[in-house]
Amino acid sequence: MGKAITEKILSDHSEQKDFKPGDIIDVKVDFLLTNDISGPVAVQEFEKMGDGELFDNNRVAIVLDHFTPNKDVVSANVSKTMRDFAKSKGITHFYDAGYGIEHVILPKDGMVKSGDLVIGGDSHTTTYGALGAFSTGVGSTDVAGIMALGTTWLRVPEQMKFVLKGKPDKWINGKDIIVYIISKIGTDGALGKSMEITGDGVKYFDMDSRFTICNMGIEAGALNCIFNFDEITEIYEKNAGVSNYKIYKSDEDAEYDYVMEINLEELQPMVAAPHMPSNGRPVTELSDVNIDQVVIGSCTNGRIGDLRTAAQVVKGKKVSPNVRALLIPGSREVYLMALREGLIEIFTESGFTVCSPSCGPCFGGHLGILGRGERCVSTTNRNFVGRMGDKSSEVYLASPAVAAATAITGKITSPTEVA
Amino acid sequence: MGKAITEKILSDHSEQKDFKPGDIIDVKVDFLLTNDISGPVAVQEFEKMGDGELFDNNRVAIVLDHFTPNKDVVSANVSKTMRDFAKSKGITHFYDAGYGIEHVILPKDGMVKSGDLVIGGDSHTTTYGALGAFSTGVGSTDVAGIMALGTTWLRVPEQMKFVLKGKPDKWINGKDIIVYIISKIGTDGALGKSMEITGDGVKYFDMDSRFTICNMGIEAGALNCIFNFDEITEIYEKNAGVSNYKIYKSDEDAEYDYVMEINLEELQPMVAAPHMPSNGRPVTELSDVNIDQVVIGSCTNGRIGDLRTAAQVVKGKKVSPNVRALLIPGSREVYLMALREGLIEIFTESGFTVCSPSCGPCFGGHLGILGRGERCVSTTNRNFVGRMGDKSSEVYLASPAVAAATAITGKITSPTEVA
Repeated sequence: MGKAITEKILSDHSEQKDFKPGDIIDVKVDFLLTNDISGPVAVQEFEKMGDGELFDNNRVAIVLDHFTPNKDVVSANVSKTMRDFAKSKGITHFYDAGYGIEHVILPKDGMVKSGDLVIGGDSHTTTYGALGAFSTGVGSTDVAGIMALGTTWLRVPEQMKFVLKGKPDKWINGKDIIVYIISKIGTDGALGKSMEITGDGVKYFDMDSRFTICNMGIEAGALNCIFNFDEITEIYEKNAGVSNYKIYKSDEDAEYDYVMEINLEELQPMVAAPHMPSNGRPVTELSDVNIDQVVIGSCTNGRIGDLRTAAQVVKGKKVSPNVRALLIPGSREVYLMALREGLIEIFTESGFTVCSPSCGPCFGGHLGILGRGERCVSTTNRNFVGRMGDKSSEVYLASPAVAAATAITGKITSPTEVA
Repeated sequence: MGKAITEKILSDHSEQKDFKPGDIIDVKVDFLLTNDISGPVAVQEFEKMGDGELFDNNRVAIVLDHFTPNKDVVSANVSKTMRDFAKSKGITHFYDAGYGIEHVILPKDGMVKSGDLVIGGDSHTTTYGALGAFSTGVGSTDVAGIMALGTTWLRVPEQMKFVLKGKPDKWINGKDIIVYIISKIGTDGALGKSMEITGDGVKYFDMDSRFTICNMGIEAGALNCIFNFDEITEIYEKNAGVSNYKIYKSDEDAEYDYVMEINLEELQPMVAAPHMPSNGRPVTELSDVNIDQVVIGSCTNGRIGDLRTAAQVVKGKKVSPNVRALLIPGSREVYLMALREGLIEIFTESGFTVCSPSCGPCFGGHLGILGRGERCVSTTNRNFVGRMGDKSSEVYLASPAVAAATAITGKITSPTEVA
């Protein structure tokens, strides 16, 4: 019997080879990441353990991305704690305020690569599955244990397969795929399971779209979300200057507990209405909703591909006077690329406010928090009650193209209507 | 007996003509501004008054610049209050999050112009004196009264004259002049008085440097700080598309209560050490101080001239790994100019984090708050205890050139050492 890609990666990272879904196994961790939210508690717990030595100071990343540049004294002191810890432990992959978002930075720099087993102190660590890696998020105390040991335990996930078929419309982004999937299976539809995205249709999605899909796998409860390594992955790794990666692909006869086929030909741009990511509807069904703010950015959709698409929509047009439009590039590198390609000028001329790279308002942190009853179309990943501000505010999750079109009209809008 | 420029402007805006220092006079207000700090209380008080009509909806500006894009739910709801008020009153000069800082926006758009009497709900309203206008800051309840009446009362200030002589070194900025002056007269050296900046040396200072000087007049306690209208003012107004300004100049035989001469030939770049703006010292006396953060921006030094100078220093160099360097353009227009001139690319390549236009961390708001014991060189205007963060943090006030040089070396540095 063949194996699925996730099973193969887990097997190669564990002494236990003969496992089945539901088993608890120990695994070696190739790379660990934490940030200015999960990091402080992890550091505190780590300091109580053993000899204070990290398992490997070259395989731990600390990225200060949630409240940076620091929004207040508390976050400033938290950042200082993490900065001092990184220095004292000789952590080579320390990213201070302004470098950008962990999940945008780490694959680009080749720290996280195809075939790796990656653990992060952040739920959206599922992102790296796009590289053909196993990656998942854990809590702060688990991060502390991995800092010390370089190993952790996992519950072996059941296998789910999502088969993309046909050719999508030019405006379809990874965001539309994952919002569509979650609208069908629900926010616990993949609870503790592995989501594998496969089928002939994957070739229409670049790595940036694939990162988006895997990023939001957690919104269906998935332990991990993964693509098989292919030509698109190979080119990405080559451009990132990475060569020591491992290639994993599912066997043709691998078995799955669940299979869903998605016909890309029929897929419309999707919007997840308040207050659950599972509340996805075709954009055209929400065209009467007036919007106060638009956010383009985050670990979900703050990559260069996202900015290129959005710029294509807004170029030469003006943001609606009723909308505050925010562009938050995912990293300094993305910002610099966008700058050199003329995208930042396009956004600014159209009336967007371009912010420094960070998680922005996604989780209610800063840089665009919503007031009473305000509505936002955002390329971020969660639209829970009060997620981005006042409890009476509303977040509609959408692709960069839909967000850009909405910024122009002031209503939820399909990119086909303005571009 | 001749009159000083401030006396002439006040006289032309009052029914009372025969006044002397210390008298209370009523004046007509040409332009009123408020923001997301002074605005909410002003609106609340205004709503209690009369018929709810503004004295003139074309001569009141509301600029949301202190906590924007909003940092939290409180500031988001405050912004919403101001936005709703602006809409309901038909205020034409409403600037939402991201447009930039009031004192950077308003002169450029010609709302505030030479010869005007300008009142603002912000202490740094003294800025506009650079245009040859009278301008000063008041509290929120005074703002409310002016909203209703278009008039206010003032205590006629004593006249102080600061005479700039000789030609300064190329790196000398308005910041160095005003920090030098305050180091000599103290933070109450001009309390309630008028500071007039004059002399042959003023011709070496462009409008951006003049705005900086007038901006910080309040740090010596001045009611207003002012330049006489000259060719530089005229060119500025022409470029801003303003024609209906009034030209005011002091009479040659005007009398002053105080005169100070400043020899520009001898002036070094100045740094105001913690914790008072009056603690100014030549940059070379502070060269041993290690720095954690550098901020270039604010209503004091966030203009295009400031960015050009700083970019000249950092071009082709890298920010010290021990420094977080923040560039916060004063307005979207400044940002766009800097973008088109290639300055934003220079800053980003060197390792600066470029933030969206706002007041930033200057007053402890957001975007770069300091942690325990951290030191910051900042182009802002105040360095009081805890002004920019933790009570144990330190702020050193300096020009954009000194701030840029410091970002490169990680120590307080004169631009001559790195440029």
